[in-house]
Amino acid sequence: MSKVEVIALGGVGEIGKNCTVIRQDDDIVVIDCGLAFPNEEMPGVDIVIPDFTYLIENKDKVRGVFLTHAHEDHVGSLPYLLREMNVPVYASTFTHAMIQSKLEEKLNLKELKLKTFAFGDIIQAGSLSVEPIRVTHSIPENSSFAIRTGHGIILMTGDFKFDFSPVDGKLSNITRFGQLGEEGVVLLLSDSTNVDRPGWGPSERIVSEGLRRVFTQAEGRVLLTTFASNIHRMQQVYEVAAETGRKVACVGRRMENNIDVCTRLGYLHIPKGVRIKLDEINDYPPEQLAILTTGSQGEPMSALVQMSKQEYGRLQIKEGDTIIYSARPIPGNEAAIWRTVNRLFRLGAKVVYDSHPAPVHVSGHAYQEELKMMINLTRPFYLAPVHGEPRHQHLYLSIAEQMGHPEHRLFTMEDGVPLVLDETTAYQGERVACGRVLVDYSGTPGISDEVLRDRNNLARDGMITVTVAVDPEAGEIVGDPMIQAKGFHGPEGVLDRASDILWDALNALNKADLRDIDKLRRDIADLLRKYIQKQTNLRPMILPSVIEV
Amino acid sequence: MSKVEVIALGGVGEIGKNCTVIRQDDDIVVIDCGLAFPNEEMPGVDIVIPDFTYLIENKDKVRGVFLTHAHEDHVGSLPYLLREMNVPVYASTFTHAMIQSKLEEKLNLKELKLKTFAFGDIIQAGSLSVEPIRVTHSIPENSSFAIRTGHGIILMTGDFKFDFSPVDGKLSNITRFGQLGEEGVVLLLSDSTNVDRPGWGPSERIVSEGLRRVFTQAEGRVLLTTFASNIHRMQQVYEVAAETGRKVACVGRRMENNIDVCTRLGYLHIPKGVRIKLDEINDYPPEQLAILTTGSQGEPMSALVQMSKQEYGRLQIKEGDTIIYSARPIPGNEAAIWRTVNRLFRLGAKVVYDSHPAPVHVSGHAYQEELKMMINLTRPFYLAPVHGEPRHQHLYLSIAEQMGHPEHRLFTMEDGVPLVLDETTAYQGERVACGRVLVDYSGTPGISDEVLRDRNNLARDGMITVTVAVDPEAGEIVGDPMIQAKGFHGPEGVLDRASDILWDALNALNKADLRDIDKLRRDIADLLRKYIQKQTNLRPMILPSVIEV
Repeated sequence: MSKVEVIALGGVGEIGKNCTVIRQDDDIVVIDCGLAFPNEEMPGVDIVIPDFTYLIENKDKVRGVFLTHAHEDHVGSLPYLLREMNVPVYASTFTHAMIQSKLEEKLNLKELKLKTFAFGDIIQAGSLSVEPIRVTHSIPENSSFAIRTGHGIILMTGDFKFDFSPVDGKLSNITRFGQLGEEGVVLLLSDSTNVDRPGWGPSERIVSEGLRRVFTQAEGRVLLTTFASNIHRMQQVYEVAAETGRKVACVGRRMENNIDVCTRLGYLHIPKGVRIKLDEINDYPPEQLAILTTGSQGEPMSALVQMSKQEYGRLQIKEGDTIIYSARPIPGNEAAIWRTVNRLFRLGAKVVYDSHPAPVHVSGHAYQEELKMMINLTRPFYLAPVHGEPRHQHLYLSIAEQMGHPEHRLFTMEDGVPLVLDETTAYQGERVACGRVLVDYSGTPGISDEVLRDRNNLARDGMITVTVAVDPEAGEIVGDPMIQAKGFHGPEGVLDRASDILWDALNALNKADLRDIDKLRRDIADLLRKYIQKQTNLRPMILPSVIEV
Repeated sequence: MSKVEVIALGGVGEIGKNCTVIRQDDDIVVIDCGLAFPNEEMPGVDIVIPDFTYLIENKDKVRGVFLTHAHEDHVGSLPYLLREMNVPVYASTFTHAMIQSKLEEKLNLKELKLKTFAFGDIIQAGSLSVEPIRVTHSIPENSSFAIRTGHGIILMTGDFKFDFSPVDGKLSNITRFGQLGEEGVVLLLSDSTNVDRPGWGPSERIVSEGLRRVFTQAEGRVLLTTFASNIHRMQQVYEVAAETGRKVACVGRRMENNIDVCTRLGYLHIPKGVRIKLDEINDYPPEQLAILTTGSQGEPMSALVQMSKQEYGRLQIKEGDTIIYSARPIPGNEAAIWRTVNRLFRLGAKVVYDSHPAPVHVSGHAYQEELKMMINLTRPFYLAPVHGEPRHQHLYLSIAEQMGHPEHRLFTMEDGVPLVLDETTAYQGERVACGRVLVDYSGTPGISDEVLRDRNNLARDGMITVTVAVDPEAGEIVGDPMIQAKGFHGPEGVLDRASDILWDALNALNKADLRDIDKLRRDIADLLRKYIQKQTNLRPMILPSVIEV
């Protein structure tokens, strides 16, 4: 029988840009197509997407992309993949609704093959099939996938938690996981993000209690910040606001758009009369107001951050406001978030963060006991944690081992390295083309490592340009050379001394030296670089322009 | 009677660069002289120090600098202050020993007035006096200061915790705090960093237990990373290593230097035969080795980070190594730390972080109940939290209020705004010169906001230089113009199209246009900037050089 290969193009050994390829002979299904956020070593990078080379090379085999849910780290790179291949995209109604506007920006919606699935459907994809199973998470219509292969079921949990009192009342189909276990799960690809949290995660329901407490006690307005896609959280805000006699306005274009779409499709039920426009907030006293806002990650251009800097025209923070952080910081954003929190305190607001004094956020990912329950239900032969960094993978596998799974059936996957299942065994194959692609703010992918290195160097010590005009025929310098610096700082006068030395060196050159423009350019750069480094220990970028006249 | 002013030049409303001025008439004492670390918006900045303008303007009144302890955020900017004024520096023997090498790098030690105090001394400083009181923290010989003024005692706690089983066995002088309370504390300036942690912080002693567990269970080598100044932690490592049959080597120049100094002065007691040189580790099997290393904050040039990248010549991470993170991440360093942790896991090592599964780190700062105990002991009339961000100050004051302190005697101080005590009242005065001074890697202070802005712009979208040679007399362009880009990325061919447009525009200029060099330069920059921004939404820095030949 043929081999089955599982290849993560992103999302294992890292958190973000989830994209998993499952291949059986000439049939490929792709699970999720997400993006990652740049880290502080990637200035000028808007988003990070997977390298799709492997899929492009096997374009004719791709039977479809299946989306587990509508979070950016699972759907955000879809426009970039669809640009390369117009393959069918299977997702829930909700997920399709949420990604529509993003797809529209970059592609012609009418030409796309967007297909909606219902939980329980079995979608044939060549020799493979995909069955979506409902499972709870911090977003509606979240799905696990059972992919049936010649070697048994591959179960991809996607992001999940077992929440027995979800906000939308729609429970995980636990029984189905058990049935699939009985049918035979050959490989479990499990969420592992929260594996370092012992016990069982709290239900989303407790956030309502926390919000109720804060909304009741707050003497002024309440502002709440969360991700624009956190529809459940917004539902809770509207409900608690209705109970506690507050109207709810919203700032942030994307959040507002999501509220509109979800209300229309029935995923968000706003109690009558609770929603108001931002312009209407002056019609109500502060204690009757709540405001939803973006900016939970300290994003510089977000409404909340601009409010904290008193630079937001439409809304000003006032003494007596209470601001609720109802989201977990994405690693790397902590410092920016604290700066915002502190600015808000300085403006006389109170800020509820870290769920003190009331629980105002819970994670959407399974804790240890939930992860174990998934293993218990599905009884997989092989296990491989996904959606986790090496530290999470390591801990997940040590827990699986404690549960009695032998080490040789446990896999620490890596992006780009196929996990191959054949009749009798599983092993890691030869790495395929795989990596990260950096997209700039113009939406153009492919910022190179060299450009990134240059940017980091430019940022560190700035740059110095030297412009010299040469008449190569005559072998002489024409006019006055020019030196300019940007972003450079060093001991006083160091640039003046550097240019004196440079001009002395230029004047000492003979006609022959001045005819070799390339060498002249290199020599100028070397001289300046060495002098500056010796004097200051700094390494600004040196950019010589030798112009022939 | 005269006024007493308390002016923080750093360290309130922020964590870092602690420096507090206490002034009574013509007498000034300075408590601490620390640095802060740059955040991600400050590329190329090595350290951040206070603006000393106020002290420089009042140089003749400064009776001395008093150091609470040897952490960088309390002593790191001292060389920069002493460069401006050679005032006496009072500190414990240990603190002096730790700062010596840093002072030596920048100043002539022999000319400095370094004075050692013992706990219990009362040091006269003009009309003020300063009494150091021993209090526990994560470093030896840590001090609070009682400053006697005409209006009573100002008690500056400095960094502290109440640890009843400190590693060096030297207990806080709780009784003295109580006696000072009886004498009359007019103002308590209290540490507030950990005010959001309820209860009582664990003793440093429990770290030994955690280390013992990890050292015993680890099958291979143990590497432990902490701050180079954490002498207590190193003491524990040596002791636990001796107990568990391991030798201890050290990587990291500064750490090694501190170990030497502290051993010589009797602050570090290394059991006989435990300390080995790094070169000697090959003489022992892995299970008999422990290694101290710098790099707990993910610093790119540190030994541990380089080891994680397999770029460290003197020591390689091996499968089976256990790495202990025995330090708290400074906010902003989280992402870099996680990257290192994950790389270590990838190399087959186990990493103990977040004190799981064993407690391998405790904080050196007082938790809520300890902070309350300090208030209880000293019974201050006025209270002002220091060493905290606005969120900490806010919480501290709400706790003080709960303890019965009336709101009008509680102060949220700000850097540079004097807290003035007179006979009957306290109030916040007029802001003095105050701010942050950014020091580059050459040690030169004063990186301007403009340079910082340029650096951030350069990093974001890179830069484009255009070089044009003009003969202004003839009113014509000479030779071929040149365009160069660094760190720039955009849609393919955009630079070629930009230069075509630019050359067309240049060719259309008449002789008069070409004679006004400044205008020509501006026009070139404008044209290019607008074109690039319109085509790409990017804003690279444009640097035109128009050279006259």
